[in-house]
Amino acid sequence: MSEVPSVSVQEVPVVRVRGDAAEVSEDRLAVEAPLEIRLRWGDRVQRLAVTMRTPGDDAALALGFLMGEGVIRTPADVLDVRPTPLQGGQSDPNGVVVTLADGVAVDVGRLERHVYTTSSCGVCGKTSLEAVATVGAPALGAGPSLRPAVVHGLPETLRQRQAVFEKTGGLHAAALFTEAGDLVRLAEDVGRHNAVDKLVGSFLEANEHVPADHVLLVSGRASFELVQKALMARVAVLAAVGAPSSLAVDLAEEHGMTLLGFVRDGRFNAYAGAERIVEAAG
Amino acid sequence: MSEVPSVSVQEVPVVRVRGDAAEVSEDRLAVEAPLEIRLRWGDRVQRLAVTMRTPGDDAALALGFLMGEGVIRTPADVLDVRPTPLQGGQSDPNGVVVTLADGVAVDVGRLERHVYTTSSCGVCGKTSLEAVATVGAPALGAGPSLRPAVVHGLPETLRQRQAVFEKTGGLHAAALFTEAGDLVRLAEDVGRHNAVDKLVGSFLEANEHVPADHVLLVSGRASFELVQKALMARVAVLAAVGAPSSLAVDLAEEHGMTLLGFVRDGRFNAYAGAERIVEAAG
Repeated sequence: MSEVPSVSVQEVPVVRVRGDAAEVSEDRLAVEAPLEIRLRWGDRVQRLAVTMRTPGDDAALALGFLMGEGVIRTPADVLDVRPTPLQGGQSDPNGVVVTLADGVAVDVGRLERHVYTTSSCGVCGKTSLEAVATVGAPALGAGPSLRPAVVHGLPETLRQRQAVFEKTGGLHAAALFTEAGDLVRLAEDVGRHNAVDKLVGSFLEANEHVPADHVLLVSGRASFELVQKALMARVAVLAAVGAPSSLAVDLAEEHGMTLLGFVRDGRFNAYAGAERIVEAAG
Repeated sequence: MSEVPSVSVQEVPVVRVRGDAAEVSEDRLAVEAPLEIRLRWGDRVQRLAVTMRTPGDDAALALGFLMGEGVIRTPADVLDVRPTPLQGGQSDPNGVVVTLADGVAVDVGRLERHVYTTSSCGVCGKTSLEAVATVGAPALGAGPSLRPAVVHGLPETLRQRQAVFEKTGGLHAAALFTEAGDLVRLAEDVGRHNAVDKLVGSFLEANEHVPADHVLLVSGRASFELVQKALMARVAVLAAVGAPSSLAVDLAEEHGMTLLGFVRDGRFNAYAGAERIVEAAG
């Protein structure tokens, strides 16, 4: 996932203005394009969602999205993920079909209610809180024990690895780190929720679970939606370079997740689950 | 809209870590809570969307959202906006009902298709591009003529006015400026699309149109969705402190909108409509 797919960046003409001086130049932008996610199980196919994403890692994005929604729980729930077929034997570059394994149950009513209500942006807190409760959010394990110095180092490690993609200046990142602060995997997207979906889904794609003793760092703010996605992927520690929202803190507390905010410049705030931060002087 | 409603900010306990030292303290967070928007016309009421927003200016948010969707086009299209009534004479703090004026036509099929497909985050580019075309995006006027120095000054003016709210560090801002760079109105929210909706809707609420010769500045990145909202509100110049996406540039170009990105540190890039920038030395 550290490669930059050519479909993810686009060159465009631009007029650069500095002070009073203008010059015609070129710039590289993050591509934004819709991805339609369809779900197939038994003899049914249903259009589930359309998300604006940066092309690349679409299968991972779809898998991570489905885990966040509670539709799939383990890699074994998925038979395969393919581009949506078009007439004439071609494939839709902006569509994927996820086929579930035999016997995986889908609660269509809940799904439709939920997807319907997640319109406009992100999720409906009320509905999602209910959905999380209904689906049964997985219990979080002990998770990692983190020394402050390790947490302080995460953003810089992320920035170094994001260097290639950051030339567009338009991408959110989500990255998974070990307890010792080593970056394991990184995903980027114009949408921060997509970056998390791509990261989580990349493990599902490889037939793995997200390691339970790792830390998830997001480059922006921590919304309710991101905490929900982390929870469904059994991530015990979510760290954000930006601020959390009130509802993000509520959800993290309710489920025993550690939520860190403003992780930058040698400091951070623990909004929930501070017990996973160790060796900090009181 | 420059007041900070008490419902918008919440105090929470926090463990602050700086270096190795930890101390228990308090922090102020931006509140995030769902708002359900219902539309009433004739003898019908329909649940339209649920958005995660920072409470406050909910009527403006609902009106701006409806303008962005092409449901309302002028202040005269709206009869009133009220909190959703609950049993026992109370009102839902997280719901509003917008009642359309007699005779305003609603294309229910289009609306349902569109709202359904806007799930996950923001909008479906494909569907929205179609929707914009179908609804007939309004033609943009000449708009303002902007000197570079005026553009350079916008972010600092925004920051100064955002000072109160910025204590939470968790809010996106959208602000409208005159051609001379004077800040006319500001809206803030955990969601950047909500901030734009609140700003646009505040004019509708006051029975006014958004001034056609002003500039809209957003504190973050410029996505397709924000360009779409600006377009539907007939804003001719959209400026962003962050990067635009490829699709945002496409849509701006298609409709003759000026789209400025990376407006900071005495420089900016014009990705579309550079002719509205005047007196820049070539």
